[in-house]
Amino acid sequence: MVENRVERILAAMKEKNLPHLVITDPVVIFYLTDEWIHPGERFLALYLHVDGTRKMVINTLLPQERDLGLELVWYNDNQDGVKILSEHMKKDELLGIDKVCAAGFLIKLQGFLPNAKCVNTSDIIDGVRQIKDEVEKEYMRESSAINDKVMGDLIPWVTKGLTEYELSAKVAELFAKYGVRTMSFDPITAYGRNAASPHHETDDSKGKRGDCVVLDIGGMYKNYASDMTRTVFIGEVSDRHREIYEIVKEANARGRAMAKPGNKMSDVDSAARDYIESKGLGKYFTHRTGHSIGLETHEAGDVSQANDAIIKVGQCFSVEPGIYIAEENIGVRIEDLVLITEDGCEVLNKYPRDLIVVKD
Amino acid sequence: MVENRVERILAAMKEKNLPHLVITDPVVIFYLTDEWIHPGERFLALYLHVDGTRKMVINTLLPQERDLGLELVWYNDNQDGVKILSEHMKKDELLGIDKVCAAGFLIKLQGFLPNAKCVNTSDIIDGVRQIKDEVEKEYMRESSAINDKVMGDLIPWVTKGLTEYELSAKVAELFAKYGVRTMSFDPITAYGRNAASPHHETDDSKGKRGDCVVLDIGGMYKNYASDMTRTVFIGEVSDRHREIYEIVKEANARGRAMAKPGNKMSDVDSAARDYIESKGLGKYFTHRTGHSIGLETHEAGDVSQANDAIIKVGQCFSVEPGIYIAEENIGVRIEDLVLITEDGCEVLNKYPRDLIVVKD
Repeated sequence: MVENRVERILAAMKEKNLPHLVITDPVVIFYLTDEWIHPGERFLALYLHVDGTRKMVINTLLPQERDLGLELVWYNDNQDGVKILSEHMKKDELLGIDKVCAAGFLIKLQGFLPNAKCVNTSDIIDGVRQIKDEVEKEYMRESSAINDKVMGDLIPWVTKGLTEYELSAKVAELFAKYGVRTMSFDPITAYGRNAASPHHETDDSKGKRGDCVVLDIGGMYKNYASDMTRTVFIGEVSDRHREIYEIVKEANARGRAMAKPGNKMSDVDSAARDYIESKGLGKYFTHRTGHSIGLETHEAGDVSQANDAIIKVGQCFSVEPGIYIAEENIGVRIEDLVLITEDGCEVLNKYPRDLIVVKD
Repeated sequence: MVENRVERILAAMKEKNLPHLVITDPVVIFYLTDEWIHPGERFLALYLHVDGTRKMVINTLLPQERDLGLELVWYNDNQDGVKILSEHMKKDELLGIDKVCAAGFLIKLQGFLPNAKCVNTSDIIDGVRQIKDEVEKEYMRESSAINDKVMGDLIPWVTKGLTEYELSAKVAELFAKYGVRTMSFDPITAYGRNAASPHHETDDSKGKRGDCVVLDIGGMYKNYASDMTRTVFIGEVSDRHREIYEIVKEANARGRAMAKPGNKMSDVDSAARDYIESKGLGKYFTHRTGHSIGLETHEAGDVSQANDAIIKVGQCFSVEPGIYIAEENIGVRIEDLVLITEDGCEVLNKYPRDLIVVKD
């Protein structure tokens, strides 16, 4: 197991008086064991007790060659893994369950443990995961460094007459050059008016002279997600579009400037949002300013007005203000990932933010 | 809502004395409303009561332009959707919850409804979904017809020197020609010994003369999955490899022959498995014979020894026996989808099963 992470989970459990918990989320199991196990529809559970007990209930069809540093409790397809888990658990009343555990398993477990009071452990697990350790910081840096390179490789393609579908396929092809085979999310490669529509799905549209192009891309590298957006223009840019671009660029900078320990997550949102509102365009900034990121592209911890949590060293999140005005055929978003340091933040995306007009 | 499906769900609820249920799975919500709603981390729930009540609790960030034929109960990010759901529910004791509902939501709902006894509704919902209606049957046919075409387009590429990654990317490119942009699963394009390894992941390997190539592909068409496997050979085939191929081909035929109403799902598995065992190769057939399929590639209802359920008209599942012998550098799988009819089954995959040696 990854000891520094397990220890932080156990410390948080003790602090919250939670004696034991069950984790079924394969992402969290990877986070704590450094082993990806894909159980499909089968039951897989990691069990931790503050007394030091660590077990994993696992189907015999998922053989593990490596010593994971905990007891493996095997069951086969003719046995009930949930029942077996219940037999291996201590009988404390309060039981933590990870937020994504499937109800089919939880309801069965509750049947075997009629006196257990279940609580959602997301405050514990998500809280620990929000603070990246040194290994994670390095992977996040490397993942975003690749994203920067792909963005550089991608931008010249916006004038080559590709459809949005083709430009999106190009993103995957360019990531593959750097060994990245899995996207963090379906790339957004939206031309002109499409870039202004929050519900636009990639289609057969092609770009034309004067169009903006929103490029929102990211890949999974060493299991860690990157996520960056740049907006460029084809051939030329109108004064109005340039004006909007510069407002978003400044909002992005103001958001990043507030990303430091001690500020609130909502302060980052306010810094970007207030600036856009001061320009009279507040109603066109239609989403939160950002989201936490790591093993998953969207992790707990929004950059929004609803999140007053204090920012801590080691957090990693996106700063991605945007302005979308369909009637003016313009959508602009500029997104960077930041990693919180002792006195501010490290911006993981180095790709420039100055306005780019791509000429053929 | 899709009335024939809702009615079958309500009939099954009455039969099982379940007064009401909550559905959070977006796939099931699509199945019952014909509307894809992607809630992300937000709470989305469809509520059905046998008294005729139908409501959906939905976040205001997921606007619905179409009348879905039920009451929409809106909540925003400053409100608790789970609490609002609990206020809209009848106070019956027995409450059905869909099997994939996230524990974070379920635990909270249980807190608002301390007297509710929760039960897993998968027997009801999965049971109804297993029986495809006429619309679904047609989409399944169309989806597999495209899969047949892609297989035909793909096979000539196995001798072109592509890596497994490149061959896998080719699958996506060929599907896109027919308007299919989403794969049912990551394609398997495994050469030679890789085809014999159950845990092989697509890599940079290339095929060589005499290699088998396992091609396991499928795409999502009109939201319905296809899934087919063919195994071909590059340049030449040894007598031993041909012998193994013919055994798998016969096992596939015997499995399909048992796919008829009144037989058990396990009979299909036995027909394929017993034949392979009769040839002394039973230990090399390392997986179940098949799985149900529809809106999802893997749906409830295995074709395995563990499933003694009686086959019913309208079911759709795969028949995919295989033999994998790493020390002989051979893996062969032949997979077809079958749709159960009154007197047997319709085989959705028409692509031939005769052994193909691809010459340059």
